[in-house]
Amino acid sequence: MAKCDKCSNQSKFFLPYGPHKYCNKHFNSFFEKRFKKTIRKYKMLSKNEVIVVGVSGGKDSMVLLHLLEKFYSKEQTIKALSIDEGIPNYRNKAIKVALKEIKKRNIEFKLVSFKKKLGKTMVDVMKKTGRNKTIGSTCSYCGPFRRKLLNETAVEMNATKIATGHNLDDEVQSIAMNFFDNDLKRMARLGAITKGSKGFIPRIKPLYLAPEKEIIAYASLNKINHFSEECCPFSWQAKRNAFRTMLNEMETKFPGTFYSILSFFENLKPSIQKKEKTTFCKKCNTLSSGTLCSACLKLEKIN
Amino acid sequence: MAKCDKCSNQSKFFLPYGPHKYCNKHFNSFFEKRFKKTIRKYKMLSKNEVIVVGVSGGKDSMVLLHLLEKFYSKEQTIKALSIDEGIPNYRNKAIKVALKEIKKRNIEFKLVSFKKKLGKTMVDVMKKTGRNKTIGSTCSYCGPFRRKLLNETAVEMNATKIATGHNLDDEVQSIAMNFFDNDLKRMARLGAITKGSKGFIPRIKPLYLAPEKEIIAYASLNKINHFSEECCPFSWQAKRNAFRTMLNEMETKFPGTFYSILSFFENLKPSIQKKEKTTFCKKCNTLSSGTLCSACLKLEKIN
Repeated sequence: MAKCDKCSNQSKFFLPYGPHKYCNKHFNSFFEKRFKKTIRKYKMLSKNEVIVVGVSGGKDSMVLLHLLEKFYSKEQTIKALSIDEGIPNYRNKAIKVALKEIKKRNIEFKLVSFKKKLGKTMVDVMKKTGRNKTIGSTCSYCGPFRRKLLNETAVEMNATKIATGHNLDDEVQSIAMNFFDNDLKRMARLGAITKGSKGFIPRIKPLYLAPEKEIIAYASLNKINHFSEECCPFSWQAKRNAFRTMLNEMETKFPGTFYSILSFFENLKPSIQKKEKTTFCKKCNTLSSGTLCSACLKLEKIN
Repeated sequence: MAKCDKCSNQSKFFLPYGPHKYCNKHFNSFFEKRFKKTIRKYKMLSKNEVIVVGVSGGKDSMVLLHLLEKFYSKEQTIKALSIDEGIPNYRNKAIKVALKEIKKRNIEFKLVSFKKKLGKTMVDVMKKTGRNKTIGSTCSYCGPFRRKLLNETAVEMNATKIATGHNLDDEVQSIAMNFFDNDLKRMARLGAITKGSKGFIPRIKPLYLAPEKEIIAYASLNKINHFSEECCPFSWQAKRNAFRTMLNEMETKFPGTFYSILSFFENLKPSIQKKEKTTFCKKCNTLSSGTLCSACLKLEKIN
């Protein structure tokens, strides 16, 4: 059996894109170093920030919370926020796991629900979208609603940053989908960090350079509790799943593909980033590219 | 059985990206209209051009020659040029097919060989590259050599344009490979038309919007002779083949993907096209981005 690149122990992890071979201990330090490097590289944090972590209860957000607590809780204030979309037998279970973990860590926590804030659960949305194909898929409602509540509540929690658990695979899937779909505008909105503006808290993705497989391994090695049911029961996500499968196959054939696509995007970003005209939503006064923000537009559609 | 979109005949061709359904006759006119539209859209031809068609003997170049002859031979002068790379049991056979077809059409024709012009056949190249992995793959020599002879000979033939048989699939594969490889510089060089400059004849790809499958169908419908052995025996092209397979699967799942990727590239091109510093090759005086052009650089490597 091959040895670890860093010590004489047997390697337990083979990362073909390096290639790297690591024992448990050195995989852990490799993973954590990259996490800290990502935060430095993209200038995600200044001093004395109030970081609100979007916590779904899944592996990504639980690992994110763990790492921010482990390395940044002395200098920064870390808080957690969960959004209950009202997806029975799924989000309630995930939030239970998240809550248990958050209580252990003794950090400020807030739970907000679609039901209370918007008057609709995702079940209500699905009842409308299921019958009426012209108003868009169920999933197209969940994202804007979640982002709206995340921002609004983070403002109430005095956040200076919102941190989300998006990983390398998520980002590369989004970049590739925009490439295949010819959507430069959407592609320009991706990236490790989104600048804030009036009423809009900047967002950071500290796991932006972490492959999904390694997050799973890290969670398991460090016994980080998380809700591990794969998919939301409302979402087939046929398109994203096809891209996930295709990209994983290409990464297996050509290791390093994910990082290469990410670099392509980062090289490209400065030339495609146009200043989008922004104004404020007439209904909720949030930053918007039109008269109504996408969440309020979606709310009108199902009301 | 479904009817043709244009008449009451039974449809023989289903093109899912439209979707279009055509009988033989209307498929033919659809294919030919798109060909002429491509030439107009990208302003490929002015009046009284001398078009030198690069003819390999394969389906793409034979269909290209047929279409240029059919629609442009009154206004334009059409000539043909074949390059013999010296690949035994392959190019010699293909050129035989090409020659027969060209004779029938009674157009000016030139055949040049790597052996005579460069002193090396691809067999000679392979003998060097096969033993020495540091000097690059066999295929990396063939492209620059072919492009060099194509341009040099086209100059001798008084060409104002060089036309090649690159089709939609070829172009989309190249775009996707550059995307996955993070190679913006190479991507910027792609496109339907390449501007010329001193000593460098502009190149056009009139089949740029024609899917490979439809070229095969058109060749068969119109009984256009061509050499149909799939691959060059020297080339495994493992990487391009993996991309071809992947892209064909995505096109099957999401019809229109090819055109969508092409549009992405075309929207992007203006922002990635930087003026490359160009100078002239010290050895052969052709346009070059360095002291030596890539063909002369390659020649030095194997001499």
